[in-house]
Amino acid sequence: MIERLCIIGVGLIGGSVARAARAEGLCHEIVGVDADADNLRKASACGVIDAGFSDIEQGAASADAVMIATPVGTFDVIFSALKSVWSTGAVVTDAGSTKCSVIESAERIFGEVPDNFVPGHPIAGAERSGVEASTVDLFRGKRVILTPLEDTSPLAVKRVESFWRSIGAKVSQMEPAHHDEVLAATSHLPHVLAFALTYMLGKKDEQTEIFQYAAGGFRDFTRIASSDPKMWLDICRANRREIVPLIHQFREELNVVAGLISSGAAEELFSVFADARNARQRFLDQLER
Amino acid sequence: MIERLCIIGVGLIGGSVARAARAEGLCHEIVGVDADADNLRKASACGVIDAGFSDIEQGAASADAVMIATPVGTFDVIFSALKSVWSTGAVVTDAGSTKCSVIESAERIFGEVPDNFVPGHPIAGAERSGVEASTVDLFRGKRVILTPLEDTSPLAVKRVESFWRSIGAKVSQMEPAHHDEVLAATSHLPHVLAFALTYMLGKKDEQTEIFQYAAGGFRDFTRIASSDPKMWLDICRANRREIVPLIHQFREELNVVAGLISSGAAEELFSVFADARNARQRFLDQLER
Repeated sequence: MIERLCIIGVGLIGGSVARAARAEGLCHEIVGVDADADNLRKASACGVIDAGFSDIEQGAASADAVMIATPVGTFDVIFSALKSVWSTGAVVTDAGSTKCSVIESAERIFGEVPDNFVPGHPIAGAERSGVEASTVDLFRGKRVILTPLEDTSPLAVKRVESFWRSIGAKVSQMEPAHHDEVLAATSHLPHVLAFALTYMLGKKDEQTEIFQYAAGGFRDFTRIASSDPKMWLDICRANRREIVPLIHQFREELNVVAGLISSGAAEELFSVFADARNARQRFLDQLER
Repeated sequence: MIERLCIIGVGLIGGSVARAARAEGLCHEIVGVDADADNLRKASACGVIDAGFSDIEQGAASADAVMIATPVGTFDVIFSALKSVWSTGAVVTDAGSTKCSVIESAERIFGEVPDNFVPGHPIAGAERSGVEASTVDLFRGKRVILTPLEDTSPLAVKRVESFWRSIGAKVSQMEPAHHDEVLAATSHLPHVLAFALTYMLGKKDEQTEIFQYAAGGFRDFTRIASSDPKMWLDICRANRREIVPLIHQFREELNVVAGLISSGAAEELFSVFADARNARQRFLDQLER
């Protein structure tokens, strides 16, 4: 049982962690830290947290479990504040979308990554953001990836793992660099494409009102372009080493496809489309498992 | 009231037209033509059509309304077959996803586009295909674009317009070339991107099993990559004049975004993402109207 869980960043992810932990009776007390006073008030008012703090030191003091659920660009500031109240008896974890950048930030601030910090990433989200969008079952059936280092305390890893399992998530472990490589492909690249396409077509729409002829397929394809711009700015900067080469690889793939369309290469084009459809079916089959 | 509606291609679109026309009592008899005997049997068995023909001449003979709902690459063959039984008293329309190619096909086969042929395109679809996927309300609230030519009979246009309105669609008219330009942006380009991305990541997944770490955002983003490959092959070939330049425009857009990520240009990148989010909201607001 956690005595005092401190959630730093009470948005979609932090709010949902709090709701789920409370529903499962995992903590005696849940406190939230957020720079946005209005957001803290909302979180308190709807019972997501027991108390809210604008100050990290105050909120994290005497917490035996800390979850950092803010955009990855904020970690230097957050680790610096946590440093002064760091307790070796507590377990600290995070929900940051990139892992190498978070680990590098911890190294920068602490000299070396504290052994009671367990880097983690729940693969769950929504196009809505903020505590109003948080739900009790956001992580049910979803994957959480932990990327502990060689020196990370096995007991701390076990406690974080058991926390996520208790709220319904499927936990796996991998190397931080592998996490960033995989997520660049399955999440970061698709988001960049959705943002770039919606940006480009948005400019066209201002001139010729094309959006009124777009339908359900377009709505689904662009859903992730409604994601939080600040969060995605941070992800792109934090994982640029993986994302930028992938963008160029995709540009090359598009160049090949454009060539096939131009030259009317029916067989090759059909096989790209059919392979894509089969690959997606393979993905769907896994998602249901 | 239509005496005999002949639907050529009893798949998702043709089947849904038949179901809706029957539900609204718009025809005395609905016959289907399909090259796939198994599909015809299914369509008859579930009451979507009253009779099925593998032969276009037989099916279309004595029909006073004909709807062509096959992939756009088949129109030369279909117009050639219809030519021998063409009745100037009937109204013929289509549901092809591109309009210039359909009109060019009619010119090729008939010398000039018959004045009782009304080119059309219902903007509705699903990632599933085939008559099993057809529904009675597929077109309710959806847009249908008609692209009549100067010589098209106003009465024929009026009858087709009234047919679509009767089954719940919102009908508008535009120039064929403008249709192909707009749909290239809002539909064809997104489909090409979804196919190309899923193809590229499918190859990665075969090596390192990345799909197990993909989530709901990826499912929505790639939904249209489950569309019928044959239909999309035809669309890409038929509208290559519009699609290929758009692909290259998007590649250039991606190049700019990759540059912003590489150089850490936070403000510019944030404004691309925020503009994209706002553009999508504008699209959603229109969709609900």
